[in-house]
Amino acid sequence: MRRLATIVAAVVGAGAVASAAAPVASGAVRQYWVAAVPAPTWNMAPNERDAMAGTMLSPSQTVFPTVVFRRYTPHWGHPIRNVPSGSSNQDLIPGPLLRARAGDRLYVHFKNLDTLYKRPHSMHFHGVHYKPSSDGAYLPGVSGRDAEVMPGQSWTYKLTAGHDSVGVWPYHDHSPSMEDSIAGGMYGMLSILGRGQKRPDREFEVVFAPMGDYQTIDGRAFVGNTPVFTSIVGQTIQWDVMAMGSEHHTFHVHGHRWVDRDGRDVDTQTVGPAETFAIRWREEDPGTWLYHCHVESHMMAGMIGTYHVTRR
Amino acid sequence: MRRLATIVAAVVGAGAVASAAAPVASGAVRQYWVAAVPAPTWNMAPNERDAMAGTMLSPSQTVFPTVVFRRYTPHWGHPIRNVPSGSSNQDLIPGPLLRARAGDRLYVHFKNLDTLYKRPHSMHFHGVHYKPSSDGAYLPGVSGRDAEVMPGQSWTYKLTAGHDSVGVWPYHDHSPSMEDSIAGGMYGMLSILGRGQKRPDREFEVVFAPMGDYQTIDGRAFVGNTPVFTSIVGQTIQWDVMAMGSEHHTFHVHGHRWVDRDGRDVDTQTVGPAETFAIRWREEDPGTWLYHCHVESHMMAGMIGTYHVTRR
Amino acid sequence: MRRLATIVAAVVGAGAVASAAAPVASGAVRQYWVAAVPAPTWNMAPNERDAMAGTMLSPSQTVFPTVVFRRYTPHWGHPIRNVPSGSSNQDLIPGPLLRARAGDRLYVHFKNLDTLYKRPHSMHFHGVHYKPSSDGAYLPGVSGRDAEVMPGQSWTYKLTAGHDSVGVWPYHDHSPSMEDSIAGGMYGMLSILGRGQKRPDREFEVVFAPMGDYQTIDGRAFVGNTPVFTSIVGQTIQWDVMAMGSEHHTFHVHGHRWVDRDGRDVDTQTVGPAETFAIRWREEDPGTWLYHCHVESHMMAGMIGTYHVTRR
Repeated sequence: MRRLATIVAAVVGAGAVASAAAPVASGAVRQYWVAAVPAPTWNMAPNERDAMAGTMLSPSQTVFPTVVFRRYTPHWGHPIRNVPSGSSNQDLIPGPLLRARAGDRLYVHFKNLDTLYKRPHSMHFHGVHYKPSSDGAYLPGVSGRDAEVMPGQSWTYKLTAGHDSVGVWPYHDHSPSMEDSIAGGMYGMLSILGRGQKRPDREFEVVFAPMGDYQTIDGRAFVGNTPVFTSIVGQTIQWDVMAMGSEHHTFHVHGHRWVDRDGRDVDTQTVGPAETFAIRWREEDPGTWLYHCHVESHMMAGMIGTYHVTRR
Repeated sequence: MRRLATIVAAVVGAGAVASAAAPVASGAVRQYWVAAVPAPTWNMAPNERDAMAGTMLSPSQTVFPTVVFRRYTPHWGHPIRNVPSGSSNQDLIPGPLLRARAGDRLYVHFKNLDTLYKRPHSMHFHGVHYKPSSDGAYLPGVSGRDAEVMPGQSWTYKLTAGHDSVGVWPYHDHSPSMEDSIAGGMYGMLSILGRGQKRPDREFEVVFAPMGDYQTIDGRAFVGNTPVFTSIVGQTIQWDVMAMGSEHHTFHVHGHRWVDRDGRDVDTQTVGPAETFAIRWREEDPGTWLYHCHVESHMMAGMIGTYHVTRR
Repeated sequence: MRRLATIVAAVVGAGAVASAAAPVASGAVRQYWVAAVPAPTWNMAPNERDAMAGTMLSPSQTVFPTVVFRRYTPHWGHPIRNVPSGSSNQDLIPGPLLRARAGDRLYVHFKNLDTLYKRPHSMHFHGVHYKPSSDGAYLPGVSGRDAEVMPGQSWTYKLTAGHDSVGVWPYHDHSPSMEDSIAGGMYGMLSILGRGQKRPDREFEVVFAPMGDYQTIDGRAFVGNTPVFTSIVGQTIQWDVMAMGSEHHTFHVHGHRWVDRDGRDVDTQTVGPAETFAIRWREEDPGTWLYHCHVESHMMAGMIGTYHVTRR
């Protein structure tokens, strides 16, 4: 029996390994390698259009150099896509979706490869358990190297997913460069399931955040640039919703409703900075549907996208 | 038995008729006729005063031409008041209160009579089930006539109230003129009861929305202009609360508390754009009470009114 | 048995007395004496630094004259600290923490000693039961002396804590000077326990409110000026969180999570103007942790502090 548990713990997906020191009986050890890397020509609106308003944009308005979180193979082998199977997201913004289950330990190896701005960076995680040396938040006279990883340096954040960690949670830069780094897209999500909880067929990450003059979803603005999420009737889909920045938003999906965790049927839900929620439903409604922030000025500034449901 | 069900389905209030095609056993078919009509001299503050501050206003600040939703008798006979029995609201803004019960089908016949601005308009409904052709939301290259009903034209939106539709929900223009139309008051509410749920004695609609330089409740600003809601000790009253626009609000009623649906006792509750909640209590406290948005700058800009409770 | 109840009711802490008229069987009578008094040199940042940004401030930016709520001994004997045992807060802003239990009656004796601005003032309480004459909210032509207590005058607010009053609630000036008074710090909290509910070992008051150009916690801005909350591993701690003003906030504590009352595990929670929540946990994590508003612009403008947990 013990042998089986060890085997189960050893095979929890790419980047996860069993550790002798880990509490194997209660969960796996998952290792992630994440670097801060330049994205020198990030484009918020690759199609250069606000399709809803029928107006054109230009690269001078929509392209800028930034630094983002990028996933690597173990031991910094080579960069890989941030997007895991079934997530339906684009690459780079948000950072890698870090998956775990309650009871798991996570080692997140972080390396600062910011050759663009040469700023210190860090990772601060919500929702999980850790000691102060894995907090990653700058506090003059108190915090240590975890909160100011200098260019070329690394830090390993040691986290535990408790039973109170089930759900989705933000991570983001909390170093002295935090304000600029978050404005440039240095954020991502943890997605933590219960021990026996089933994974959804499709998982969609929606991060509402301002970027320059626009209001973006996953660093992109306006229909046709923001992620196009897709599913098939009969699939279980999950939306991971989060906000970063300084504003409150209301997440709305056309033609659907969900039960929020306090039992209310809703189709519009407030999310403030660093708040998150995960919602699920079994898809039954084919069509092309809008999802957007229902704060009107945000929607008009780009915070809107499409969701395509096809028949099996 | 079947005959009885047919009869019950046939008499669900003004504008509702039984349809041969309707699933009579599971609910009624309710038909509503709603037009977009000019309101050429809408006045946000008919008494021309900010009574709390003791300052005077002038019609040049408070009167403007707009387009609103207006209820009609069946088959466009003639316009009638938007306000159903027991609602205690003023007329015109918000649009007609569309009532239904879980299991009902709704046919909302919409006609664009906007002779003022001659804009396209539409109705987009939250909370209910429908096919994409009843979504009413403009999406270039995808949406159809439901999302751009031109002046003089009509569209019928076909909706179903599911068991997950119980509560109050917004509807609003989602056509290409959406931004201007919502700023002018083109919104209203669905109020959906459970199959056997008792209707309250009094139902009050409170829509928080900006309008020009003011912060309005139901298109009106400042005490004496906003709705004066009334009830009698012993009555069951329901507040239908909603926000439209780009800001978050906090709804507060003096001298009362309520249990929100997650079991908390509160007397102040956040509502963001397109969010809604319905709260009920049995009235026990005679007096003249303030209700208002507790966002201070909103309250000072007009988002406040009075609620009068008298003894039997 | 009845005798015992009378004795229990008579000894509920400083300022509480038994009243012949009180429903002794169901609770105690608690009396508080609170005055509006000048604080001529309130300093939002006594250390004159934004430690996170590494910048200096000057008293010309951070010091200003204001009027605050100040607790007195019975019958206006002499001023005492606003901070009760175990609260870990600084003095003066917020006003006195008014504690009670469900079933108690509260007499809050208020005196206006505003010799600085010579404005009318009042106290308006959330969460408790009262008659209109204890509402304390100015409404021209309707409200009475409770809503405009002039300098030198007094008013006694008569409140009852019901079973729907358990939790924490705001009180604040709601007189004609409300806007200026709240901007200057005239607010505080009621903390009401259930009949048999255990008091926490430590109780921390966190009031998010703008003040001049800064975003303050309890009238103070930036780490080192805002309250330093402390606890010992094993203690039960309670955070009383509230917002005043015109903005929504998200309360976040590093390295901890809590169950909100609808059963969700969170570590970041929205609080809008006049909303409140009380959260508790048994402390297990030694370290120096940040607590802050996660609205980035608010955090950068001072809305951040530290929480120290030591081992027993």
